[in-house]
Amino acid sequence: MDPLPKSQIVAFEEQMEHFLPNHSVDCVILGYENQLLKVLLLKWKMYDAWCLPGGFIFKYEDMDKAAHRVLKERTGLDKIFLEQFHSFGKQKRAEHAASDEGRSIRESMSRLGFTKAETFKWFNTRFVTTGYFALVDIAKAQPQPDFLSAACEWKALNELPKLVLDHNEILEKAIHHLRLKINHVPLGVSLLPKKFTMQDLQKLYEAILGRPLERSNFQRKILKLEVLVRMEKLMSGAANKAPYLYSFDKKKYNHLIKAGIGF
Amino acid sequence: MDPLPKSQIVAFEEQMEHFLPNHSVDCVILGYENQLLKVLLLKWKMYDAWCLPGGFIFKYEDMDKAAHRVLKERTGLDKIFLEQFHSFGKQKRAEHAASDEGRSIRESMSRLGFTKAETFKWFNTRFVTTGYFALVDIAKAQPQPDFLSAACEWKALNELPKLVLDHNEILEKAIHHLRLKINHVPLGVSLLPKKFTMQDLQKLYEAILGRPLERSNFQRKILKLEVLVRMEKLMSGAANKAPYLYSFDKKKYNHLIKAGIGF
Repeated sequence: MDPLPKSQIVAFEEQMEHFLPNHSVDCVILGYENQLLKVLLLKWKMYDAWCLPGGFIFKYEDMDKAAHRVLKERTGLDKIFLEQFHSFGKQKRAEHAASDEGRSIRESMSRLGFTKAETFKWFNTRFVTTGYFALVDIAKAQPQPDFLSAACEWKALNELPKLVLDHNEILEKAIHHLRLKINHVPLGVSLLPKKFTMQDLQKLYEAILGRPLERSNFQRKILKLEVLVRMEKLMSGAANKAPYLYSFDKKKYNHLIKAGIGF
Repeated sequence: MDPLPKSQIVAFEEQMEHFLPNHSVDCVILGYENQLLKVLLLKWKMYDAWCLPGGFIFKYEDMDKAAHRVLKERTGLDKIFLEQFHSFGKQKRAEHAASDEGRSIRESMSRLGFTKAETFKWFNTRFVTTGYFALVDIAKAQPQPDFLSAACEWKALNELPKLVLDHNEILEKAIHHLRLKINHVPLGVSLLPKKFTMQDLQKLYEAILGRPLERSNFQRKILKLEVLVRMEKLMSGAANKAPYLYSFDKKKYNHLIKAGIGF
C-alpha cells in the first residue's frame, strides 16, 4: 500500500489544530441482517487491526454533531439516529502510547506519510472518549472506508477480529445498553419490513439478547405493549396456513419511545 | 464574607496544573426523605447561585474515581454508589465566560482571593462534563460544604433555587435516567427501612416518577418482580388491622439488579 498523498496529510494536520484536546467520540453502529447482529468496523491502513469509527470534536462544535460528522467522514453513513450511551475515562486509555500497540500504530502512521511531531504527540495523549450507538438496517446502509482506512465492513458479533485499544469494551457496553433499552422502549420499526411475522420480531429480540426466548412468553409480552396491528389473513388455500402478519402502530410506537414501557 | 486564606488558594492553584484540560465531572445526588425527592446543592461563596457538586479529573486518575473524590472533597459524602448517566458536550457550555454569569463568577473568585491569570483562563475554557448520579437515604448522609462553598443543602425538586450554567439541564437528565432505570431494575433497598408497607414503596416510586400511581396496578407490577417477602401479621387486636409489612429478598433483588427486569 502506498503512502497517502501529501495534500491529504496536510489537510488532516491543519484540521487537528482546531480539535478540543483530550476528548474523542467513538461510534458503535450495530446492524441487523439475516437474523444476525453485526457491528461496523474500520480496518487501519498499514496496520493489521480493526477499530470502531471514531474521531475528534472541533472546538466550535457540539459533541453530538461531532459524532454525526465523524461517522459520515469515516464510513459515509449519514442521517443515522445516534444515541450517546457512555463515556470511557480510565487513565489506562493513555497507556497504549507506551505499548507494542502504540508503537505499531505510530509506525503505520509514519509509513502512511505523517511526519509532524505534534501529530504523534496528539495521538499519545490521554483521551476520554464518548460512545454513541445506533441500530440500523444493513440493507439500507452503504458504508465506505475513509482515506485512513483499508476497509469498512460489517462483522458478526460472534466472529470479531482483533480491535484496537479498549474498543472491545466499548462495543460490549453498547450491547449492554441496547439490552437494557429494549426493556423500556419498543424496537423494530427501522429494522423489519412493513409487514412481519411474530417470529421475525422474536428473531430480532433474540439477536439483540444473544439467547433464545420462549415463544408464547415473548408473544404475550410483546402484545401487551399494544404497538402491533394484526393483519387480516387471506382466506384462500395455502395462505390460510401462513402465520399472521403484523405491522407497527406508528402512533402508539412513537408514544412508547417517549413515555417508556413500565410504570 | 472574608477572602480565603492564601494557603488554600495556593494549594488549589497548584493542584490545577495536574488536571486533564477540557473535562469535568458533575454529581447529581438525589436524596429521599419524608416521601420527597431532593437534590444536593452547593452555594457558591460570594456569588448568589447554587450548583451541583462538580470538579476536575487528575491526569493520572480514572474518571470514575475522580467523581468519587470530587463528591467527597466538595460535600463530605463518601462511599456513595455513583453511576455515570450522560456527558454534556454542547459548544455553548463555553459561552458562559462571555456572559453576565461568567463575569459574576470571575468577580466572586477575585473577592475570594484568586489572582492567577491561569486560573481565570482555566474556568473560561470549554468543558465537556460527565454526569454521575446516586440516590441516597438523606437520613444517613451528613453533607458539609467545602472551602469554596457557603452552604451544602438538600433542596426539594419543586423548590429549586437558580442553578449556574446548564446545571438544571444536567439535573433533569439525571431524573429522566432514574425514571427509565426503575423500569428495568428494582429499587428501594437503601432508601426504605428493613420492613415497610406496600404504601411506603409506592410513595417512593411516586416521588421518583413525579406523579401518583394507581394502587392495585402498582401492587400487581411490584409483586410480579418476586423481590418482596411478606411478613406474618401479628394476630393480636389492633395489629390485625395494620397493613402487611414487606422486606426485600436480597438475593433475588441483587440478581435483578444484574439481570434486569423484562425480556
